[in-house]
Amino acid sequence: MTNPLNSLGLAARLAATELASASTVQKDSALTLMASGLLEKKEEILAANQIDVAAARQSGMAEALIDRMILDDARLNGIVESVKNIRSLPNPIDRLIGEVTRPNGLRIEKRAVPLGVIGIIFEARPNVAVDAAALCLKSGNACILRGGKDSWQTVQIFVAIIQEALTNAGLSRFAVQTVPSADRELVGALLKLDQYVDVIIPRGGKSLISRVREESRIPVFSHLEGICHVYIDAKADRSKAIAITMNAKMRRVSVCGAAECLILHKSIVPTIGRDVISSLIKAGCEVRVPGELLSLNTSLKTALDSDYGHEFLAPIIAVATVDSAEQAIKFINCHGSQHTEAIITEDQATADNFMRHVNSAIALHNASTQFADGGEFGKGAEIGIATGKLHARGPVGLEELTTYQYRVFGNGQTRP
Amino acid sequence: MTNPLNSLGLAARLAATELASASTVQKDSALTLMASGLLEKKEEILAANQIDVAAARQSGMAEALIDRMILDDARLNGIVESVKNIRSLPNPIDRLIGEVTRPNGLRIEKRAVPLGVIGIIFEARPNVAVDAAALCLKSGNACILRGGKDSWQTVQIFVAIIQEALTNAGLSRFAVQTVPSADRELVGALLKLDQYVDVIIPRGGKSLISRVREESRIPVFSHLEGICHVYIDAKADRSKAIAITMNAKMRRVSVCGAAECLILHKSIVPTIGRDVISSLIKAGCEVRVPGELLSLNTSLKTALDSDYGHEFLAPIIAVATVDSAEQAIKFINCHGSQHTEAIITEDQATADNFMRHVNSAIALHNASTQFADGGEFGKGAEIGIATGKLHARGPVGLEELTTYQYRVFGNGQTRP
Repeated sequence: MTNPLNSLGLAARLAATELASASTVQKDSALTLMASGLLEKKEEILAANQIDVAAARQSGMAEALIDRMILDDARLNGIVESVKNIRSLPNPIDRLIGEVTRPNGLRIEKRAVPLGVIGIIFEARPNVAVDAAALCLKSGNACILRGGKDSWQTVQIFVAIIQEALTNAGLSRFAVQTVPSADRELVGALLKLDQYVDVIIPRGGKSLISRVREESRIPVFSHLEGICHVYIDAKADRSKAIAITMNAKMRRVSVCGAAECLILHKSIVPTIGRDVISSLIKAGCEVRVPGELLSLNTSLKTALDSDYGHEFLAPIIAVATVDSAEQAIKFINCHGSQHTEAIITEDQATADNFMRHVNSAIALHNASTQFADGGEFGKGAEIGIATGKLHARGPVGLEELTTYQYRVFGNGQTRP
Repeated sequence: MTNPLNSLGLAARLAATELASASTVQKDSALTLMASGLLEKKEEILAANQIDVAAARQSGMAEALIDRMILDDARLNGIVESVKNIRSLPNPIDRLIGEVTRPNGLRIEKRAVPLGVIGIIFEARPNVAVDAAALCLKSGNACILRGGKDSWQTVQIFVAIIQEALTNAGLSRFAVQTVPSADRELVGALLKLDQYVDVIIPRGGKSLISRVREESRIPVFSHLEGICHVYIDAKADRSKAIAITMNAKMRRVSVCGAAECLILHKSIVPTIGRDVISSLIKAGCEVRVPGELLSLNTSLKTALDSDYGHEFLAPIIAVATVDSAEQAIKFINCHGSQHTEAIITEDQATADNFMRHVNSAIALHNASTQFADGGEFGKGAEIGIATGKLHARGPVGLEELTTYQYRVFGNGQTRP
């Protein structure tokens, strides 16, 4: 059976070949045109968005979900600023990653090149279309977008504006495409388009990510869950412990870097542990603890086994206790999702050991798990966070959207 | 249905966790014990190998294939030297890959860590077992070996010696394991052991690699074919063209870096082209050309369409002609296998353009394609060559057997 996305995939592959050698000036000019196009067509975008929002309301979608898809002046300006920010980042292509001159005189360069074609599957937030397209363009990759059906009209007009910008910058408009309909079968078709697509990046909830990981024959950059832990060690500083745990849990409860579990060294339970817990409760967090900790505070709930290794994405935290940092490491490697973990301690050796042994993309010492973000890592922008081990781990920014090629410079060398 | 390799996979995972934090001294001491064990048990190894060879002869295996599996004193010494060489390489783990200090004072290190558990599936050559185990050990990875049934006894004794070395170095013997039988179903089981295995590396012929790529849910480092091209440009130097083409094709015809296709710029066909072709013919190479070139030499054969994009692995080469370097690039990107391509020219701009635009892991200017090798790239040793785009591209050495972790050092930072 022919893949219904074959011709779209071929067009993307050809555009990717062209884009791989586009100059910085050309790519940046497309991004400039993209930003101005979004501002010029503001009315049309907002009108398309209103159609999407009305349809969503009619279908009975919850207002909290509808809020994610609504665009207004402020949000549209935010999208434009994001495009301008991506334009201002250094071109990651042709970057010299390594260089060696061999005894026979061969000079070997390892240079960054684009991955090729990236498939991006996302849900309600239409801004992902523009963000992803801008990041792919800057990194010389063509992309195929598949937005959720709820934001369909908004994404279509975004893509039309982006394609016009590409054309006006002298680049192929097939560098940014959208699948032709919201038909769910096209998600399956995209996941099987391995002849043309090099990487799939899903952006959305757990069920989407699961489906993509299950069905895709193409490598996937994603995190299924962010089950992040904060471990407060025996040698923790009280005020750091409170400030970091509060921030890790409560700054924003719905982000993947939010802490879902607090691990307390038994020796500090009655002192720092009690204070951290009472701060969380005062801030409106539900704290679920093992039976022996219930006496610490009258508002505590009993933790069930299923609360560990669970991503609440809500003002709820599970608390566990351990006898040692080693035990905390084992607990995390058993219950975590290889995303982000923090240790709070004044003991550098304990911190070093913890960071080396937790099996996660990001390990922090005396800092909040909510720093798990490409921007905070100095990457300028990110397309997501990956918890797999291969190629991209942690924040996926422009650099992670590249691969490399070895270029070998000789003057007639032959191999003995 | 339970995977029959589950318990073996779990043991590998636990050993990998331990190995990830093994010191350089400990890993090197295991490699030293491995080398001495192989020498001490030489008689037993050769006896086991004779059983394999006798069984292969009895089954009517061709002598050329049997030769690949035979061990003798010299070959065994070569295997031991390879272990010693791997021991002498720098420990790739904990290598600082990048570092940034953020305005908020967070210091972010990007450090190399092992991939975890590597599954290695190979065919007749028993030395692959030792080589792969040594590379995995040095890079802190556990491995699960599945050798071909023809070398079964030899591989079993190798693994027993390696496990003894691991134990005597204080490491888990489960860091290097072999599947329990040569049953082909266990290959399928290993390819589905994604819960425990991080990467699969197949070493063998095209049918093995195809099967692995088709069946595996686990990322694969491999090259299916090495369809390497040499392009002789209009501005080529005659003596470089002859020397490099001869070396690229004839040095060893059975390696993946051997040239399979020669592309001639039409302007040099009657001069350099004729000389290169006559050198190839004199050296015993069958040269297959388009009809219009047949008059160049009476020994020429006519090329069929199927000769392009074909891996001969024999003293046979297909010749194509082009009007420009751009056409050569298109020809390669259409018929190649993204492995290794060379351009011969004295024009630097043409060379740069060629190297940037061929869609292959390795591009060479005025040097032989047979340099496609981890040792020649200064990697010390390699476990194979990968033509995929993700993670490892080109020679796969110790560095490519690692991934990374971000370690973030704070002093109480919280995210605004």
